[in-house]
Amino acid sequence: MKTIHSPLAMTAWCKALRRERVVIGLVPTMGALHEGHRALIRAARLRCDALVVSIFVNPTQFAPTEDLATYPRRLTQDRALCRQEGVDACFEPTAAELYPEGFQTVVSVPLIARRWEGESRPHHFAGVATVVAKLFGIIRPDLALFGQKDYQQCAVVRQLVKDLHLDVRLLMRPTVRERDGLAMSSRNVFLSPEERRVAPVFYQALVAGRRAIERGLRDPGSVQSVMRKVLEEVRSIAVDYLAVCHPHSLEPLDRIDRHAVILGALRVGAVRLIDNVLAERKYR
Amino acid sequence: MKTIHSPLAMTAWCKALRRERVVIGLVPTMGALHEGHRALIRAARLRCDALVVSIFVNPTQFAPTEDLATYPRRLTQDRALCRQEGVDACFEPTAAELYPEGFQTVVSVPLIARRWEGESRPHHFAGVATVVAKLFGIIRPDLALFGQKDYQQCAVVRQLVKDLHLDVRLLMRPTVRERDGLAMSSRNVFLSPEERRVAPVFYQALVAGRRAIERGLRDPGSVQSVMRKVLEEVRSIAVDYLAVCHPHSLEPLDRIDRHAVILGALRVGAVRLIDNVLAERKYR
Repeated sequence: MKTIHSPLAMTAWCKALRRERVVIGLVPTMGALHEGHRALIRAARLRCDALVVSIFVNPTQFAPTEDLATYPRRLTQDRALCRQEGVDACFEPTAAELYPEGFQTVVSVPLIARRWEGESRPHHFAGVATVVAKLFGIIRPDLALFGQKDYQQCAVVRQLVKDLHLDVRLLMRPTVRERDGLAMSSRNVFLSPEERRVAPVFYQALVAGRRAIERGLRDPGSVQSVMRKVLEEVRSIAVDYLAVCHPHSLEPLDRIDRHAVILGALRVGAVRLIDNVLAERKYR
Repeated sequence: MKTIHSPLAMTAWCKALRRERVVIGLVPTMGALHEGHRALIRAARLRCDALVVSIFVNPTQFAPTEDLATYPRRLTQDRALCRQEGVDACFEPTAAELYPEGFQTVVSVPLIARRWEGESRPHHFAGVATVVAKLFGIIRPDLALFGQKDYQQCAVVRQLVKDLHLDVRLLMRPTVRERDGLAMSSRNVFLSPEERRVAPVFYQALVAGRRAIERGLRDPGSVQSVMRKVLEEVRSIAVDYLAVCHPHSLEPLDRIDRHAVILGALRVGAVRLIDNVLAERKYR
């Protein structure tokens, strides 16, 4: 497996492969790889010839008050996982290489980004959209894979690719969960044992919401009540938002006709968790 | 010559050529082609195998108060000029095709865009950067040519290409002028005969500024005085700005060491003209 730091070297490596009609896959990550990333990498491995995993804790998607400094970094283990899974190249640029002096371009997807995560993290998705556009420029992958866990991020990237006519196929893969349902996340390490014990109630609430929709509930408010009832049982949990939304625009639905995504964010102690499920109301 | 309206068809046409290693050139225009565009097209023709000219009056780079509705449109003549010059494809999308429902991505280059034209036209360069990113996405040219007349636009596009790692070579070609020095512009048709008669003093002023720098003047303020003295002779002209700037960042220089660009905008009656010259202070 190659380890590549410089964007120019990464571009050159990919360009040579592309000339040979090699299909290039990309899994963009911030490192601290867990089983969710492994599943993305395995799904990518099946679908491309040359597989790049980028590892970059992107500073522009963190607000000054957020956890950029403490975000888990485990480069040695990350590389080992990549090697294990047959990754061809780890792209590990530094911030100075991606954002040199004079850098200033911003890519934003303002409508999809304005709600939910965008509300509590106002510049987050512009940071995400810009770095993804940069990675797509550097690597020019045929295929890029993202985890459903960051559903709003997936929606932002999908819109960006469409709007800028980027020639990359996107694949959103299902969230990988612990056995008790907690969505895998690099930030789960920050949960205390007690917080970790109650955290799975988040997914239980989402599943209850999904089940209510599947059974025919049309009113998003009622779905929310179902979910809040599940969460109320745990006093250490504070809901940030729970929303029943259109799966592409992420606008809250007035009425559930068929497809919806339930997006949620909550705090367990000091740790903020996000999760989501897709739901389909069955016609009867 | 092919005339292509749909972005998808344009992408398909280019993709087939690219597979055959054909070098694709792009001259992006808003139509109303004049000798300045012809020079760009000829320069492109020499440097690529397949030449695309895009003709699109981009609404997002006009403010509501600006001249979108009256901007000259002459599609038949434009196509004739393209045919004459051996263009392979005219890309003529509609606004609805480039900006379908749900479209929302914005590409901005905030530092280069904030001054000069950006000051009187706050969203102009985000409109330009976004549509250029879209055209580059649709066509994926190897080479794109821009006229120096829109110097700040060139600087915005150069930065955007660098920051997003786009694989396109940019070529800025010198401004083509009328015999009396007036920079060719699609908007020159709006000048009354009397305005047209005095307009060349703009270029005379810029040339006087350039000459002052070449002769060793280090102080931008003094260079501006030289230029203003030339313009003062014409009462119907109002200076919007005249600035001695760094050729890449477009920040005003405190002191001219070697390279500079003199950027200007002024009003002749109701018509706003922009022009610029590059200048180099000779070491002695």
